[in-house]
Amino acid sequence: MAKAIFYHAGCEVCLSAEQMLAEAIDPRKYELEIVHFGNAPDRIDEAEKAGVRSVPALLLNGTAFHINHGASMAEVKQVVAV
Amino acid sequence: MAKAIFYHAGCEVCLSAEQMLAEAIDPRKYELEIVHFGNAPDRIDEAEKAGVRSVPALLLNGTAFHINHGASMAEVKQVVAV
Repeated sequence: MAKAIFYHAGCEVCLSAEQMLAEAIDPRKYELEIVHFGNAPDRIDEAEKAGVRSVPALLLNGTAFHINHGASMAEVKQVVAV
Repeated sequence: MAKAIFYHAGCEVCLSAEQMLAEAIDPRKYELEIVHFGNAPDRIDEAEKAGVRSVPALLLNGTAFHINHGASMAEVKQVVAV
């Protein structure tokens, strides 16, 4: 099955987007994983390589979609202190 | 059923987002409508009132999510010459 990854950093914009968008994704088409960089700073590198420049972001089968704007990846890295 | 509206203006960023995101939306949860402002400039007002500030944008049950950035609504209005 195709993979959907929702990357976020716990901000309010992220949580609102997570709730609505994650629920809207068709589970028959995408296996959804939700990654919170605060809990998984080791996933930042992978996300940036996939083209994620801000959060919240949704990676659909390898293509990054930036949803509204919560924080840039530079800001995320400052907060999680990688 | 809840309503999902995908607003776009035919730009490349819009079309890539449309194809992948529209297909990812669960049709059991959302009735999806796709609106191209070039063909339906009369829908611009409704979109702006719902909070759409740029395209492509996805309105899920009345909440606007801006997906990446193709063009601002000001740019859209210039192109469709409302």
